[in-house]
Amino acid sequence: MINITLPDGSVKKFDAGVTPIDVAMSISEGLARNVISASFNGTTVETKTPLTTDGSLILYTWNDKEGKKAFWHSTSHVLAQALQEMYPGIKLTIGPAIDNGFYYDVDFGDQTITDKDFKAIEDRVLAISREKHEFKMRSASKAEALEFYKSENNPYKVELIENLEDGTITFCDHATFTDLCRGGHIPNTGIIKAVKIMSVAGAYWRGDEKNKQLTRVYGISFPKQKELTEYLELLEEAKRRDHRKLGKELELFAFSSKVGQGLPLWLPKGAALRDRLEQFLKKAQKKAGYEQVVSPHIGQKELYVTSGHYAKYGADSFQPIHTPNEGEEFLLKPMNCPHHCEIYNTKPWSYKDLPKRYAEFGTVYRYEQSGELHGLTRVRGFTQDDAHIFCTPDQLDEEFKKVIDLVLYVFGSLGFENFSAQISLRDKEDREKYIGTEENWEKAENAIINAAKDKGLNTVVEYGEAAFYGPKLDFMVKDALGRQWQLGTIQVDYNLPERFDLTYKGADNELHRPVMIHRAPFGSMERFIAILLENTAGNFPLWLMPEQAIILSLSEKYENYAKKVLDLLENHEIRALIDNRNETIGKKIREAEVQKLPFMLIVGEEEEKNGTISVRRHGDAGKSNQTMSIEQFAALVEEEVNKTLKPFEV
Amino acid sequence: MINITLPDGSVKKFDAGVTPIDVAMSISEGLARNVISASFNGTTVETKTPLTTDGSLILYTWNDKEGKKAFWHSTSHVLAQALQEMYPGIKLTIGPAIDNGFYYDVDFGDQTITDKDFKAIEDRVLAISREKHEFKMRSASKAEALEFYKSENNPYKVELIENLEDGTITFCDHATFTDLCRGGHIPNTGIIKAVKIMSVAGAYWRGDEKNKQLTRVYGISFPKQKELTEYLELLEEAKRRDHRKLGKELELFAFSSKVGQGLPLWLPKGAALRDRLEQFLKKAQKKAGYEQVVSPHIGQKELYVTSGHYAKYGADSFQPIHTPNEGEEFLLKPMNCPHHCEIYNTKPWSYKDLPKRYAEFGTVYRYEQSGELHGLTRVRGFTQDDAHIFCTPDQLDEEFKKVIDLVLYVFGSLGFENFSAQISLRDKEDREKYIGTEENWEKAENAIINAAKDKGLNTVVEYGEAAFYGPKLDFMVKDALGRQWQLGTIQVDYNLPERFDLTYKGADNELHRPVMIHRAPFGSMERFIAILLENTAGNFPLWLMPEQAIILSLSEKYENYAKKVLDLLENHEIRALIDNRNETIGKKIREAEVQKLPFMLIVGEEEEKNGTISVRRHGDAGKSNQTMSIEQFAALVEEEVNKTLKPFEV
Repeated sequence: MINITLPDGSVKKFDAGVTPIDVAMSISEGLARNVISASFNGTTVETKTPLTTDGSLILYTWNDKEGKKAFWHSTSHVLAQALQEMYPGIKLTIGPAIDNGFYYDVDFGDQTITDKDFKAIEDRVLAISREKHEFKMRSASKAEALEFYKSENNPYKVELIENLEDGTITFCDHATFTDLCRGGHIPNTGIIKAVKIMSVAGAYWRGDEKNKQLTRVYGISFPKQKELTEYLELLEEAKRRDHRKLGKELELFAFSSKVGQGLPLWLPKGAALRDRLEQFLKKAQKKAGYEQVVSPHIGQKELYVTSGHYAKYGADSFQPIHTPNEGEEFLLKPMNCPHHCEIYNTKPWSYKDLPKRYAEFGTVYRYEQSGELHGLTRVRGFTQDDAHIFCTPDQLDEEFKKVIDLVLYVFGSLGFENFSAQISLRDKEDREKYIGTEENWEKAENAIINAAKDKGLNTVVEYGEAAFYGPKLDFMVKDALGRQWQLGTIQVDYNLPERFDLTYKGADNELHRPVMIHRAPFGSMERFIAILLENTAGNFPLWLMPEQAIILSLSEKYENYAKKVLDLLENHEIRALIDNRNETIGKKIREAEVQKLPFMLIVGEEEEKNGTISVRRHGDAGKSNQTMSIEQFAALVEEEVNKTLKPFEV
Repeated sequence: MINITLPDGSVKKFDAGVTPIDVAMSISEGLARNVISASFNGTTVETKTPLTTDGSLILYTWNDKEGKKAFWHSTSHVLAQALQEMYPGIKLTIGPAIDNGFYYDVDFGDQTITDKDFKAIEDRVLAISREKHEFKMRSASKAEALEFYKSENNPYKVELIENLEDGTITFCDHATFTDLCRGGHIPNTGIIKAVKIMSVAGAYWRGDEKNKQLTRVYGISFPKQKELTEYLELLEEAKRRDHRKLGKELELFAFSSKVGQGLPLWLPKGAALRDRLEQFLKKAQKKAGYEQVVSPHIGQKELYVTSGHYAKYGADSFQPIHTPNEGEEFLLKPMNCPHHCEIYNTKPWSYKDLPKRYAEFGTVYRYEQSGELHGLTRVRGFTQDDAHIFCTPDQLDEEFKKVIDLVLYVFGSLGFENFSAQISLRDKEDREKYIGTEENWEKAENAIINAAKDKGLNTVVEYGEAAFYGPKLDFMVKDALGRQWQLGTIQVDYNLPERFDLTYKGADNELHRPVMIHRAPFGSMERFIAILLENTAGNFPLWLMPEQAIILSLSEKYENYAKKVLDLLENHEIRALIDNRNETIGKKIREAEVQKLPFMLIVGEEEEKNGTISVRRHGDAGKSNQTMSIEQFAALVEEEVNKTLKPFEV
């Protein structure tokens, strides 16, 4: 008999030789039907691997990341089999699962594969799958394994095996196909119900450009056809919402090869959008007792030696800026905290003055390899909505809660309703690697846990994920396509107050160290706007829209009236433009719909006579327009704006 | 007979041997009395130098820079004589006039001079001066000159003479004193009526720190005692208004040796002040059709090679920023124009789209030697209120006028009433050094001249002062102490549109080059705030004051009412604070006066009962306070604000 420990901590006794599927069956038939992969004592096993010792077992279904990994890895075997049948003589190399599907790198020799061939490959993969082949693992000696691939004339697999130790080599067989494989498969191919070959691309053998270029065949598979359809629709929608595409169409930002990659240029509409976001947060922060400061974009190397950033990141960063003489060295500012510590240090403080909350929309520069850059989500220069709170340890609880309130206010005003919070604490075992006293850590960790609980956040606690200088809380936001983004970080820091020798005079008349909180609800303006673009597809909340309304004249005759309406709207601080072209009103409406303009204001003879506008909303096909005065429309806009943009209550 | 041409272009005939004083006398006795120096054919001459050829003569009085120079240089001779009498055996070196007075560098040997000695020196200088000694120039051979100073045992003068060519050496004698001198003196010492030794400082012989350190004695002199008194008062006032002192007292900005010299940190009150100025200009610019953009603080070296800045300034600038790999090179942005050109280049334009006006509060970085740095007026990083207008050559006139309107609006709103405009045009002779066609230059120069005339500006035209890429107009502002500052530049540029290949499609369907206007009404936020501080001594216009009012409670009992008043004021967007200390109201008022708070709002029993405040204005000693409601006070503040801050009318 062996003891099997399940993830909920329960221990069950089984005969030695029990398989994961058997264990699943002992729990419920439903579970057994859905189990597609398992891990035993932290190692991936097959669902039919006999378990012979005591240990911890995790059963995975399609809903788990590990389950998907097994599903996709298994499909790559079937793909390899199909390719080998359809393109005789090709040489297979490796075929792992990835985040979204799998690939197989293949040396096609003189043969070629194009997207015209994808359908036939998919059909063949599905045909094989329908035959419900089981995956069977078996051990092989190194000599045996080498012999097999030498006979297949496959130098890639031979090279792989040569780097393995004898006794660790396993093969996986299914149907007539055999592959070198470490395991982790679904019970049988029958559950692969939908497959899509996504693309082919060049890839060097072992990622080294000195090696031969192979063809990487990307695919994805699902247990239901419907899931594939949904996945492909999501991909299409993500393409339509790609912030790089929308940013160009809406003329928000651009890049210039002369200025440099990863350094966005904000065009007028984008700069105005950014400014609205900044003013929105500034207003809330003012109410919350923050003070804006301004610091330079460079600092002496000495500043970052003091903060510890130079030792940690110096070599991988933009290199120091030298002066033409006097031998000084500066660095582009990679973060604002050292500057804010120096601002704190410009005068002595008493506990009565704390907390001090310094906020800055601070632009920082961090080197990224050009291959890593991506639109606005991965850039080399970005503006953090940064702030640093300097408080006494006793104020930490309260301050942390206040920051959470502010972050929730930001999310609410911008339509992010679906989020969770990850709390990163110290490693439970290794506590040597953290700085600061046990007492302060306890205080800080409890402050975060209690604040999150108090605010009713949906939290996940991750041990060992704290920074060496303090614990933190990250907000994970799900966007309209179900993708998860990390937005909004709150960190507690004992390190910089120490390194910058920050002090305040306590009630006891002695000098004490303040605690620092780093926080950024948006994270960075660039990344936040990218995510906002993809989440809303450009249909921003009304208060944020670059243009809130378009005035459509029924003919050029009404140009003057249209201009008068525009002036009146400007007095009400409504952003609008005029379409006075000599086009039909139908065409003008269609184009305004494409441009996602929230309100279309139609003006003609009747409207001019009565001093009114005929209002149509974006997406209101079929509904009749509403005639109203400018004042009524302004009130309508204000009402709409106030639905999402409520004042921040401290 | 010789022909003497005077500055007004008139030519007069005189006998050869006529002196400048004779010429002055021929014009008017008053002029002759006031002439203290002269130049003939561009060379400084004595007022009694006989003129023997035709030539151009300029006569200088105390009101001319050249007149003051002669006055101060002459006084330095008298100072040297006095020092030599009072400190026997000292060795004189050089003693030139400077911008404010003169100095003499002296090797005092074992003797010392301190500020206790200044009075005696001043008395002796005045005593000598009252003897009305004339300055007499005479030539000496090199051998004779060397002989003289060797006999005086003065190695410094010997060294100076050794570097002169025989035949060019002149001495100047007055009273018993002789000095090596190139000339340029007042008629006699009698007009020196007031003198002040300002300070002594160390100075290396010939400015080389490898040489011996001498003592530099600084002095200044005037033709009237009253002028000295006024000058010293002005100096005292300038010290009180020093923006570095006020910036510290008002907690506006600070410097940190860790962040680096010349890199200001804006503290909360300073950042808020800056923000108010930025918002003020943004609002006016929006009305004037500008669009805000945002560009990064670095650019690839390539960008500045394209703009030509790298070739011209690269070696003397902050050196390139290298990436840890990929071999890229970036530069800290020294100006925003190349970035804005690249923003213009993100899409094709038609003449119907122009002018485009891109504005940015762009922070730029320029290397300055540490010895050149001074508070906020000479820094290494500063934020320009920059904008670049891209227009057709035909739009230049109109655009230039609009920019002048904006600059005048800015000056008016900030209390700078006393200014003139310098128009910098091409050199009349050498036109090779300018780029762009004759036609465009004509257009641009005329645009500036006409715009300045049209706007009724008080102008000075300087030929040869244009940049090589275009003409410009600079505003010269006089501050409350009569000091002149250059504020607000408007430049026309044909160069960058060429270098960045900027184009627009004209009405003729052909591609044309736009013209660019660079402009910055403030110049830089840092320098402007420094000048504003010194001009107002911290008494900013009411709309700009960090705090507009202080609530003074008659006793701690009224704390709650004081807070209520503060809340009400905040609703009216009035910036206020509370002084609720347990101090007498007299003391609170005195301290609020020192802090320059525009309004003091006194609250006690009566006010709480009636819901009023008792209002006292800054500087209103003796006047009785006015009791009013918060609403009345808010209306009063609004009225005061509107006196200086009028809306910008396009």
